[in-house]
Amino acid sequence: MGEFDLIRRYFQRLPASGVEVGVGDDCAVLVPTPGARWLVSSDMLVEGRHFLSTVDPARLGHKALAVNLSDLAACGATPRGFTLALALPRVDDAWLAGFARGLWGLADASGCPLVGGDTTQGPLNLCITVFGEAPPGQALLRSGARVGDEVWVSGRLGDARLALEVFRGTVALEGAGFDSVRAAMECPTPRLALGQALRGIATAAVDVSDGLLGDLGHILAASGVGARLDVDALPRSAVLAAQPAVMQHQCLLAGGDDYELVFTAPPGASLPDVGVALTRIGRIEAQPGLRVVDGGGTAVEHGLRSFDHFKS
Amino acid sequence: MGEFDLIRRYFQRLPASGVEVGVGDDCAVLVPTPGARWLVSSDMLVEGRHFLSTVDPARLGHKALAVNLSDLAACGATPRGFTLALALPRVDDAWLAGFARGLWGLADASGCPLVGGDTTQGPLNLCITVFGEAPPGQALLRSGARVGDEVWVSGRLGDARLALEVFRGTVALEGAGFDSVRAAMECPTPRLALGQALRGIATAAVDVSDGLLGDLGHILAASGVGARLDVDALPRSAVLAAQPAVMQHQCLLAGGDDYELVFTAPPGASLPDVGVALTRIGRIEAQPGLRVVDGGGTAVEHGLRSFDHFKS
Repeated sequence: MGEFDLIRRYFQRLPASGVEVGVGDDCAVLVPTPGARWLVSSDMLVEGRHFLSTVDPARLGHKALAVNLSDLAACGATPRGFTLALALPRVDDAWLAGFARGLWGLADASGCPLVGGDTTQGPLNLCITVFGEAPPGQALLRSGARVGDEVWVSGRLGDARLALEVFRGTVALEGAGFDSVRAAMECPTPRLALGQALRGIATAAVDVSDGLLGDLGHILAASGVGARLDVDALPRSAVLAAQPAVMQHQCLLAGGDDYELVFTAPPGASLPDVGVALTRIGRIEAQPGLRVVDGGGTAVEHGLRSFDHFKS
Repeated sequence: MGEFDLIRRYFQRLPASGVEVGVGDDCAVLVPTPGARWLVSSDMLVEGRHFLSTVDPARLGHKALAVNLSDLAACGATPRGFTLALALPRVDDAWLAGFARGLWGLADASGCPLVGGDTTQGPLNLCITVFGEAPPGQALLRSGARVGDEVWVSGRLGDARLALEVFRGTVALEGAGFDSVRAAMECPTPRLALGQALRGIATAAVDVSDGLLGDLGHILAASGVGARLDVDALPRSAVLAAQPAVMQHQCLLAGGDDYELVFTAPPGASLPDVGVALTRIGRIEAQPGLRVVDGGGTAVEHGLRSFDHFKS
């Protein structure tokens, strides 16, 4: 099977609504919503770095798009489409069929059509670029947090990192507990509805991809503020809560791969109910830096930092 | 140097005009021109496949963006911005500084700012996604060629492939001749002004990336027509013209990496003068398929095909 057959078989469909020209020309042509801003984000996933070679290809297809949609969610954008560039060591039909099934499943569920891309031979690498829209002035940015705002997080943190530790052999876990944290790692849910519902409510937002400390740190740096974070308030699964405190802190604070939204909002803000749990985990303060405390307000020594692709 | 220092040092600048939020948030935020269509294209470059490990990093930075801008040119789009996702085996400051210099040089010359992206560790891989705009109904597509249209090409074909053959050791060439074909391979010029000037004039267009036969073939397939192509009319450099006929045909017809525009237009169309040579190389016919003939109209046997990433 050649390059163009591969594209036709797995990645080409009739153009979706709002897409004048989809896969198959030099460019895709999309129709912007009048007056809307255009939001763009790009993420690259490398085998051995972002996923294990043994991962179910359908879950990988889902995750490759999910981590990109999570950036749109963090900005409160409505998805409009994405491109996929794919380097493959070889053409493996079973792998491609699974990958495409996972990818299209999330694309369809998110109203975000594949509009173009590239395929080439090379070490396995997935690069997705997503496009979305938001009304002028309503994109959620990292820079709007104000002193006194509360810090909130969606869903639960830490399960993806716990699963990674199981794969690394540092944690022993099997059965349903392992299945659930493995699903958190391999099949994250981008919080698109929440992000859109937070337009005009949240003052700043970010998605947790590299770890809570670092990602919340981006909000603090961009907003020129500090924060106090209650580690005991951080939402976690029963599986993670059964681990020793040190492992819990590692997974919650510096885990990464969570794809939950961390956002700030003024006290008393009317937060949206889109079927995702929201937990208050801290408060924005004038003093720079991030102070991690326990439920009693005592400082927690953790010695953790977020993931850095060129430092860890 | 960590991931975020790397981004700040080489890839972050103040947002350009029309860019509300650039590098440094979860998404970039761009302001579309009212009424315009949004055009998107993505290309991935892999070491050893699309470029040699010995290439000057500034030329690689230029080329990585050029091959993407060439897709915008083929659609007649005005560039608005691009994202860069970069997998690097390690942080090499000299390499990054050169790469960024070449990349920004072409970005500035093309009015196409870097607005976002991703960096990660992994086998060297460059994925760029470009965004541009065109008025509704004026994007140049592959599907509009009509029987009787003339087939035109910009610039010259074949030098990039000739340079590749020198690197492969199948052709001996040195001095100024080698320098010029090497520059064609490593430093192509996207035909942006030509593409925009062809709006409303060309009936179909494509850029020559995989080879003239294959890329013109895309126009024929999408338009449901055939063509006659005069191989003697194909524009070529004096360096290429000094090669044996078989090598000339190889480079001209199936070379690839040219990034010239091939387009169709009705006879007598008033073609734009943007300082790029335009050469008439054939005619669209009703009979399906592509017939390659010499200047006397005699069929030329070539046995060539375009580049396919999973077949060659």
